[in-house]
Amino acid sequence: MTTLLVLYRRPKGGPEALATFERRYVTEHMPLVAETPGLRATRVQRVSEALGAETDLAVVTAMAFDDRAALDSALASDPMRQAGRILREIAPGLATFLVLEDAPDLG
Amino acid sequence: MTTLLVLYRRPKGGPEALATFERRYVTEHMPLVAETPGLRATRVQRVSEALGAETDLAVVTAMAFDDRAALDSALASDPMRQAGRILREIAPGLATFLVLEDAPDLG
Repeated sequence: MTTLLVLYRRPKGGPEALATFERRYVTEHMPLVAETPGLRATRVQRVSEALGAETDLAVVTAMAFDDRAALDSALASDPMRQAGRILREIAPGLATFLVLEDAPDLG
Repeated sequence: MTTLLVLYRRPKGGPEALATFERRYVTEHMPLVAETPGLRATRVQRVSEALGAETDLAVVTAMAFDDRAALDSALASDPMRQAGRILREIAPGLATFLVLEDAPDLG
């Protein structure tokens, strides 16, 4: 399994800016993500705190694919490209995209 | 569901330091984590890349609990406290602990 993990930092502008981001995220971005070919599962979570530290992260989204090839195809697909365009509009410079591979030898 | 997501940065010292961290992580840290009361699931993944950016992250571990109270009890338990002591030894200053809450309204 290959996971695309997206870490979203809090937008500047306080709770109102965060609410606007969340509204557009769920109404504009996620419907396109849902159409992405090869996407096996999606999980969206809010960051409630970082233990023992400050954090500027607000939302974490995990998208699961069969393998890296499936992720690469998904990233090249029309829905994902459109979803990416919307992200650049609603969360400019606020997202980090990590590619994760299962590590059964570690856990 | 409440998730404890731990982001591990790469230790200084190159591949050898990373291999040492991983060896002690799996042989010393994870057996204690496995004994943690209330832990519903654990997933360990390696970071293979950050899309369009550099990243200093090496490993991401997600631990699932029923709710925040279960996570807090787990954090206060003997196995988790011992596991934390080992982490401070094998990955000093390299771990970020995020508490995540499911956000069905977002995804």
